[in-house]
Amino acid sequence: MPATFPPAIFQSFAEKSDPANVAPRLEALRAQMTQAGVDGFLIPRADAHRGESVPPSEARLAYITGFTGSAGVAVIGPERAALFIDSRYTLQAPAQTDTTLVDVIEIGQGTTLGTEIGNYVPANGVLAYDPWLHTPAEIRELTERLAGRVTLRPVANLVDAIWTDRPAPPNAPITLRSDNLTGKSSAAKLEDLATALQAEGADAVVLNLPESICWLLNIRGSDVPNAPFVLGYATVDKDRNVALYVDSAKLTPERLAAIRPLADLVHPVAEFPAALEALGGAGKRVLVDPATAPEAVAAALKAAGATLVEKRDPVLLPKSRKNEAELAGMREAHKLDGIALAKFLAWFAQSAPTGALTEIAIVTALEAFRREEPTCLDASFDTISGAGPNGAIVHYRVTEKTNRTLAPGELMLVDSGAQYLSGTTDITRTMASGPATDEQRDRFTRVLKGMIAISMARFPKGTSGAQIDVLARQFLWQAGVTYNHGTGHGVGAALSVHEGPIGISSRYTLPLEAGMVLSNEPGYYKSGEYGIRIENLLAVRDSDVAPGFLEFETLTLAPIDRQLIDETLLLPPERAWLNTYHARVRTEISPHLTGEVKTWLEAATAPL
Amino acid sequence: MPATFPPAIFQSFAEKSDPANVAPRLEALRAQMTQAGVDGFLIPRADAHRGESVPPSEARLAYITGFTGSAGVAVIGPERAALFIDSRYTLQAPAQTDTTLVDVIEIGQGTTLGTEIGNYVPANGVLAYDPWLHTPAEIRELTERLAGRVTLRPVANLVDAIWTDRPAPPNAPITLRSDNLTGKSSAAKLEDLATALQAEGADAVVLNLPESICWLLNIRGSDVPNAPFVLGYATVDKDRNVALYVDSAKLTPERLAAIRPLADLVHPVAEFPAALEALGGAGKRVLVDPATAPEAVAAALKAAGATLVEKRDPVLLPKSRKNEAELAGMREAHKLDGIALAKFLAWFAQSAPTGALTEIAIVTALEAFRREEPTCLDASFDTISGAGPNGAIVHYRVTEKTNRTLAPGELMLVDSGAQYLSGTTDITRTMASGPATDEQRDRFTRVLKGMIAISMARFPKGTSGAQIDVLARQFLWQAGVTYNHGTGHGVGAALSVHEGPIGISSRYTLPLEAGMVLSNEPGYYKSGEYGIRIENLLAVRDSDVAPGFLEFETLTLAPIDRQLIDETLLLPPERAWLNTYHARVRTEISPHLTGEVKTWLEAATAPL
Repeated sequence: MPATFPPAIFQSFAEKSDPANVAPRLEALRAQMTQAGVDGFLIPRADAHRGESVPPSEARLAYITGFTGSAGVAVIGPERAALFIDSRYTLQAPAQTDTTLVDVIEIGQGTTLGTEIGNYVPANGVLAYDPWLHTPAEIRELTERLAGRVTLRPVANLVDAIWTDRPAPPNAPITLRSDNLTGKSSAAKLEDLATALQAEGADAVVLNLPESICWLLNIRGSDVPNAPFVLGYATVDKDRNVALYVDSAKLTPERLAAIRPLADLVHPVAEFPAALEALGGAGKRVLVDPATAPEAVAAALKAAGATLVEKRDPVLLPKSRKNEAELAGMREAHKLDGIALAKFLAWFAQSAPTGALTEIAIVTALEAFRREEPTCLDASFDTISGAGPNGAIVHYRVTEKTNRTLAPGELMLVDSGAQYLSGTTDITRTMASGPATDEQRDRFTRVLKGMIAISMARFPKGTSGAQIDVLARQFLWQAGVTYNHGTGHGVGAALSVHEGPIGISSRYTLPLEAGMVLSNEPGYYKSGEYGIRIENLLAVRDSDVAPGFLEFETLTLAPIDRQLIDETLLLPPERAWLNTYHARVRTEISPHLTGEVKTWLEAATAPL
Repeated sequence: MPATFPPAIFQSFAEKSDPANVAPRLEALRAQMTQAGVDGFLIPRADAHRGESVPPSEARLAYITGFTGSAGVAVIGPERAALFIDSRYTLQAPAQTDTTLVDVIEIGQGTTLGTEIGNYVPANGVLAYDPWLHTPAEIRELTERLAGRVTLRPVANLVDAIWTDRPAPPNAPITLRSDNLTGKSSAAKLEDLATALQAEGADAVVLNLPESICWLLNIRGSDVPNAPFVLGYATVDKDRNVALYVDSAKLTPERLAAIRPLADLVHPVAEFPAALEALGGAGKRVLVDPATAPEAVAAALKAAGATLVEKRDPVLLPKSRKNEAELAGMREAHKLDGIALAKFLAWFAQSAPTGALTEIAIVTALEAFRREEPTCLDASFDTISGAGPNGAIVHYRVTEKTNRTLAPGELMLVDSGAQYLSGTTDITRTMASGPATDEQRDRFTRVLKGMIAISMARFPKGTSGAQIDVLARQFLWQAGVTYNHGTGHGVGAALSVHEGPIGISSRYTLPLEAGMVLSNEPGYYKSGEYGIRIENLLAVRDSDVAPGFLEFETLTLAPIDRQLIDETLLLPPERAWLNTYHARVRTEISPHLTGEVKTWLEAATAPL
């Protein structure tokens, strides 16, 4: 009965852009290019803070091309323009832009961004870019790739010059996060950071990633959807002096009073350039992460006389090792999420056979169940709600246009998460809506066996996510199939749902350490037919098996659809793991349920 | 009855060096250093051809320090000297050198060669090295590490100046390998190489690795133990012109007549420097592998005006993909080896309970059984024959001094291999000599399960050895134990037993491809008690499971000791794999056996 739920607040299903806007905006932008004396302009999806979500005021790529995906870059040449996207967006991008004016090119299939961009700018031309929106590493690579053909030039953003109705920047209030939730005072974190800076031979660091700044200063905000971020910049020196630069709208006397301990160190962002100049003028050695910092920051520091120390943002690794308070918060969040999931899955089991459920109704219902919990602040990302063949589109996002009704018998893939005050969740379940085929049960069981193999893994300290990734894939590989995404990503504690620098895939070669939280989400996708993914979040912990060994604690608490399991493929230890897991879900969640939902959960978690 | 066998020819058990020689030789070398006006001299184990074995004329490290291991480097300073070794040699090195004069330092445990070397040369001193014995990458790294403290200077080798009784260089004859064994003519290989050079933008390549030269020219030799190498240098240009430079003793009219098709392109090595000068003088772009070429070659080319193209030796990857003829040869070699192994293991089963077997007797017997086959040309490395606690020393080599008698009940680890005319083998078996403990059977079974997991693996093209390594480790990790070596290395086809650029460990990130041959050798080592390793060789082949998938063919044919298996730990598919494997060993080997050995093999390969 989804119609009885209040409308979802977190996710919108409207078409967000109109291809008809592309032509006039391109024309206006090209006039700006001519005026600036340049032959091309780069428009990345990213803002200066590199998050997956950007505020409306930074959605330049969508403004010009219509494309609203979470990654991509456009190059606008004098005649032609191109939009470079990854395999997630091969369907969405051409549907959102005007393909008569913009070539949509998938990067990664034998094409390299740097090389392709060169085709859109005249030989010996000037390609302009906004140095706040690109990292030093990106600019270095582009410069190398385009050497001898095209010259790069930093400029003030040309899109902003034509964007007459540009929204104001976000000005959500900053809130303090208490030490009992963070587990460590900001003062103690700053002390560790100062020690790290000294070890790297740096006098200071400039931070631009909101996850680093929020974690370091124990603050949260709501400047972007899906992550409780405060957008801004921070500088920290090795004597633990810290300054935070944010939009001046955040600095009213009333708001400053609400964050009193921080008030002295918060400054309007207009003062940030002067701070960079001061660091340079004092000849400081300043740590800048070439992979994440704005090129504008690196250039300003160098121009003012600073020596750059190019290293990974020194907050990322400490932040990834969650302390006991953060883990307690994550466990609490997963219990709250487990209660919502039980209600949702029980509702789904009852409603799916009617044949009336739509993908949007499923998202709406899930959000409503989550919102019954008052500390649920947001979705941690737009829910992936894929019915039947839409489940095979790995990063599918339903819109009113694509909204599919789930036919009984089809598989339903739901990948969702929430931001609770206590922590961040991310869970995928794939459900049968009627009798499944033998092939579907075979594939589901192989995905499950991989998920269990990661869940049960023990490994010596020093082992990376790259090393254990194959444990999740081995059973699918035995059947000659695979999945084309990583097995797991890092997850923040009441921060972003995707965070580095660790994960489970061949890209992640840093050792896993106790306290790190990761997703474990193997899948299988049969194009045009169905998609399967099973995802739990895990926390790395010390193992009792031997000193120096680590293992995983499962955080996620929701039943896995037993109707989709081919029991003959499960080995005894796998069956034991599943039964133990389901018993734990029952023990932890069932006391918070009543009536039909409780009855449903007890049946759904009964031993195999 | 090992005493009835003829003495082993391939392996010597004598102590190879006398620490008493170290003092006078160091003194003479330091006099040379003074005369040359330098403050230190580097003596690596490697010769210019980077093989694991060096001819006696190149054994400078052993001549000066007494250390005969297969890897290491010494630095001789004015006062102190140091010998840097890896963890394989922590026992052997101090026993062979004079530790009152030479510090033995293990590299890799928080110590870096470049940094440590600096401690043996006075501040602002000159450290000399022979540029034929170091690669450009090594010299670059040392220069960086020692910057501001020590200056590096290439010199004519100072050891050679004092080595009055230095042996002559090897002058074994070159033999041609027929196209039906190589599967591809040298002309066709040269054509591929020319194409590769053009793709890399190079006009020519200089080769110094004997495996590359021997494979490319379809020649073999016996200049060093254990690998059928011809030592020399080759140049190849993009028009397929090739020249081979070898010791002039190899170029008698009689010998040239025996390799007639090659005669025109073989030159005395004395002409090699002029060839480098000619390439440089013509301003050629010359491919040099900075990881394996001599710095002297790179320096000579640059000095003469060449542009260096620094890339991996372009022969390594094509060579690693064995063709059908090479694979047929490898299969043949493994059948011959399997026959010898069956005889050996039957003999061991009968002899071990007597309590009279020594490690040397075991090596001698195994060699004798192999030498019954006339096409067995050499051992592919010195056999590792570890009784009881010696089995826990991963690269143990028995000498008359360490020779241990196998007490009934101890485990016996034998890692050995042979060079047959048809191909190269490498096999490890661990045998019980009496009732094993529960712990030993648990560990053996976990090692076996890992070995089987690799053997049964299927994986999509593009998968590297780094990705599948954990399949071999997972069962040991579950028990909180591990092994500190790679799971597998590449193996040559009638070439070196260790060859790059692929393998199974986190170091090897290149994709595995059909035709590549690898070892699969997980292990477990309990220091002071016992060692376990089980090793088969595998060839990568296309899998029938799905297009684009690969799997392994097992080449090695020898029983795995069933007495050491804890059957309760084996899952049904693992048991099925073992029974199928043993049935294959029986089918392929048993027809070549008679009498007691045949009876033994049939029992040893009976289904579990």
